[in-house]
Amino acid sequence: MKVLVIGASGTIGREVVEALAIKHEIVKAGKGSGDVQIDITSPASIRSALDSIGKVDAIICATGDVAFNTFANLSREEWDVGINSRLMGQVNLTQIGTDYLNDGGSITLTSGIIADYPIAYGASAATLNGAIQHFAKAVANELPRGIRINVVSPSVVTESLGTYGDYFPGFHAIDARDVAKSYIRSALGIETGQTFKAFAGN
Amino acid sequence: MKVLVIGASGTIGREVVEALAIKHEIVKAGKGSGDVQIDITSPASIRSALDSIGKVDAIICATGDVAFNTFANLSREEWDVGINSRLMGQVNLTQIGTDYLNDGGSITLTSGIIADYPIAYGASAATLNGAIQHFAKAVANELPRGIRINVVSPSVVTESLGTYGDYFPGFHAIDARDVAKSYIRSALGIETGQTFKAFAGN
Repeated sequence: MKVLVIGASGTIGREVVEALAIKHEIVKAGKGSGDVQIDITSPASIRSALDSIGKVDAIICATGDVAFNTFANLSREEWDVGINSRLMGQVNLTQIGTDYLNDGGSITLTSGIIADYPIAYGASAATLNGAIQHFAKAVANELPRGIRINVVSPSVVTESLGTYGDYFPGFHAIDARDVAKSYIRSALGIETGQTFKAFAGN
Repeated sequence: MKVLVIGASGTIGREVVEALAIKHEIVKAGKGSGDVQIDITSPASIRSALDSIGKVDAIICATGDVAFNTFANLSREEWDVGINSRLMGQVNLTQIGTDYLNDGGSITLTSGIIADYPIAYGASAATLNGAIQHFAKAVANELPRGIRINVVSPSVVTESLGTYGDYFPGFHAIDARDVAKSYIRSALGIETGQTFKAFAGN
């Protein structure tokens, strides 16, 4: 299988690449690194990157920005960070990416535990993570040629606790290598329209 | 109680007004009708309308546009209809409205059954209805002074079957008067962060 991993140099993306590279051909993509550059907030960037890669069997998106602030202070500009990246970046990747997926291919998007368990500063993340989960559930019924779509919703990863741990007080962290399993299950399995919750006990 | 009902002339809004008006003071609002005009896509319009009304005990939003199309053909302009109305219209109404709510007041927003049960042309509605439900769940933890927030998710209403029935094949419709009960439960009850699903058996 040929697999495009967007956000390949990220904490989770690296583990996805490492696990899949054993048996599959990986195209690593990122905003400023990797084999190919993709900025998911730009449909033109998505299209141009996919043109250069050609057909693939799986697209994995392990990236997507969102702004953090108290709800009272969240500005429309901050909401738009997530609307254009976490939400519409992944929606556009799905819409455009479908044309570049072989029959029976798959798309795997990323949300996050904040969709289910609110944290301070997380109102926009909760909203847009939730949006992506409902998007995948709905659009799974419309994708052509046996193409599947799922979402992975990770808890805070162990490797990021130094940076983000204080925002997730008392949450059970998960190793990035364990989160990667959900992406692999989505890309190599048969399920569609699902959100794989890469967390437990919260 | 003084209750602001936005979308007061709509099929559902009319029933909400009729049920609440028995015991409460109602301010009816709409884009072009009612006691006060509000366009929820415009923060300036929301603020100006609320300035003219003054403090209220409950805000009920029974409006919010979203575009319908096949996923393959949904344009960003069509996505933006829902992003600016169903999603950010209701988000902005919550953010601004909080300043105009008395202690212990409430905000009730609207999503729809498509969040849970996909229909043709409904990918954007599913996504943004879902977003609003996750928004309310998260932001309920941030609202000050005992202010509550809930969402009502109605099935297609019986009164609209002539217009929309073909888009909901085999769905159980619900009378607008029964949907109104969920808004009343939200405004007069004690729950917060909930989505009241005004449908059954689907």
